[in-house]
Amino acid sequence: MMTVGILGGGQLARMLALAGAPMGLRFMVLDPSADACAGQVAPLMVGEYGDESALAEFASQVDVVTFDFENVPARSAQWLAQRLPVFPNPQALALAQDRLLEKTLFRELGIEVPPFADIASRAQLEQAVAALGTPCILKTRRLGYDGKGQFRINAPQDLEAAWTALGPSVEKTGLILEGFVRFQREISVIAVRGRDGEFQTWPLTENWHVDGVLSASLSPVAVEGALAEQARLAAHKIAERLDYVGVFALELFCCDGRLLANEMAPRVHNSGHWTIEGAEASQFENHIRAVVGLPLGSTRARGQACMLNWLGALPDARGVLGQPGGHWHDYGKEPREGRKVGHATFRADTTLGLVDALHAAGEQLDRHAQVAPVIARLRG
Amino acid sequence: MMTVGILGGGQLARMLALAGAPMGLRFMVLDPSADACAGQVAPLMVGEYGDESALAEFASQVDVVTFDFENVPARSAQWLAQRLPVFPNPQALALAQDRLLEKTLFRELGIEVPPFADIASRAQLEQAVAALGTPCILKTRRLGYDGKGQFRINAPQDLEAAWTALGPSVEKTGLILEGFVRFQREISVIAVRGRDGEFQTWPLTENWHVDGVLSASLSPVAVEGALAEQARLAAHKIAERLDYVGVFALELFCCDGRLLANEMAPRVHNSGHWTIEGAEASQFENHIRAVVGLPLGSTRARGQACMLNWLGALPDARGVLGQPGGHWHDYGKEPREGRKVGHATFRADTTLGLVDALHAAGEQLDRHAQVAPVIARLRG
Repeated sequence: MMTVGILGGGQLARMLALAGAPMGLRFMVLDPSADACAGQVAPLMVGEYGDESALAEFASQVDVVTFDFENVPARSAQWLAQRLPVFPNPQALALAQDRLLEKTLFRELGIEVPPFADIASRAQLEQAVAALGTPCILKTRRLGYDGKGQFRINAPQDLEAAWTALGPSVEKTGLILEGFVRFQREISVIAVRGRDGEFQTWPLTENWHVDGVLSASLSPVAVEGALAEQARLAAHKIAERLDYVGVFALELFCCDGRLLANEMAPRVHNSGHWTIEGAEASQFENHIRAVVGLPLGSTRARGQACMLNWLGALPDARGVLGQPGGHWHDYGKEPREGRKVGHATFRADTTLGLVDALHAAGEQLDRHAQVAPVIARLRG
Repeated sequence: MMTVGILGGGQLARMLALAGAPMGLRFMVLDPSADACAGQVAPLMVGEYGDESALAEFASQVDVVTFDFENVPARSAQWLAQRLPVFPNPQALALAQDRLLEKTLFRELGIEVPPFADIASRAQLEQAVAALGTPCILKTRRLGYDGKGQFRINAPQDLEAAWTALGPSVEKTGLILEGFVRFQREISVIAVRGRDGEFQTWPLTENWHVDGVLSASLSPVAVEGALAEQARLAAHKIAERLDYVGVFALELFCCDGRLLANEMAPRVHNSGHWTIEGAEASQFENHIRAVVGLPLGSTRARGQACMLNWLGALPDARGVLGQPGGHWHDYGKEPREGRKVGHATFRADTTLGLVDALHAAGEQLDRHAQVAPVIARLRG
């Protein structure tokens, strides 16, 4: 009986363990928090990711290691990788943790990216703002997520406030200035690569963010011309270059018929949650299959699916479960402002069926604004 | 956070817990065995079903009770039902535990059944064999499952051996003699009824048994004329009469254009395992939704699915996971002669796709005989 160790015990670890259990796999989760929600469905070891004695104990109980989130110290991942298989490999993890290294790699691989500049000082920020123009966005290179660690510079006079907000982080996290992209659509490609190099992507997903946090996803979506194949190729090049094993997400902007790569997440991703009900094999199942060396499952869509994120607190489950094809995911977390506490997926065989279910749920849950852009896209 | 208590900790409890966890539900399993396989995915309390102190401890930790198997002592179910909600209700459970009561009910409801007779003595057995003719089958009224507690009487001279085998059980389990049915097909209808009376059935499933144990299931299947509607109506009448809440299976024989009811199982059922991948909401998810009072999910099929049971020991998972639409279920049990240790489900959007996957798996796993009747049915 193989035991998969997961660093991080949030909802991603929870959904990984639930996807792996039917295949007879056992799990062990390491998390600094005793109430990490994955601990409700798998054994939880409470410990810091940087604590070698915790890592040693963890390593002694598992056969292979993977991640629920990417901001594990690179040294910890390396320490584990010297002792047992770790997927994705620590180098891939370290690269994807850093916006500058990541964008530099994309550019090397011929994947178009928005303009960017490394920022090590206030003087460099001034030069870069002049070069890239406004609006532009100052971001931490590392440890940012869900819109955190970002400051938008709308005009040169915002530079002072941006530096006040993020300048103190420059030593710890590094900074990057990114040109602002006037995109029409945000899409993501969820990809998986097996230990043997087998590579698959799920159909493209379109995403809607509110205040930098994912609000809704829809898949499959049609995109112009060759963009879908271009997105798939970009993901494949990245996976090959990093010798990546497992699932990752590549976030892209659709911008006047071009694709610009925004960032990658070296793990299962919020924009792939729809795959649980909407694809033959989910991102969670395939991540586990990849990590333990089993053949990958089909990434084909089953009908069309929309995911809605629940932030802060859960609405009434009945508003979702009462719709045909409505599925409910409660992560078992305490409510807290802005926290991802659950999601819903609506799946239907027809576009009309999906529109109807979303419309009804939007009414019953009083979530019109959340479903509106998805319904607009479905109505084309 | 609601906790669902499950009496019995086998693979059904395991799959119930895995289906309920995404909805934010907690589980607690009571089983006499410390290595009950549901204990790998949910907290397990080790105790006898008839032990009132174990039941009291169990009841103090859960909000609602349901069952992984039906042979819990009726008194225990009643004891629990005086203290908290128990679904299905103990009367329904007691009735479905007893082949005689069950068949008597079916007949009362106008559901056709094979001829049968209550047997309390050897003299009654002789009279009944003469009346029903041979072949016929002597069965225990209670506590039989998977072909256990049965003796086939092919000719009057087998009566002696039948009484020697099962006569000693007559006090403990009761006995029933059933006329032998020369059926063409065995089918089952999996049904669910909510606390509010909402009633749904999944598409009909055809089943193939080997030595009295389920070997393969296929769904949806076409049946002659009005038989599908007749099966659904029979299930509905039973559910209403018993005020049944949760999932149950009704096993039927297709016999020269007629349906004969064989038995019901007052729980999720092996012939409904295909619903995990092959239906919008699985039997496990809907049983949990019913038991906790949530709206039922859609029972519509997604394409066509075939389930293969693994008895004794698991074959190589790669032979299943390497096929498109192949899904693997390992119950985490030790191998043992005849034991149900796992199953596979193959799902496809087309009949041809399903035939191809089954054919390939049959080859790779050297399981030709197991897939052959399913492939023959699909090729129609």
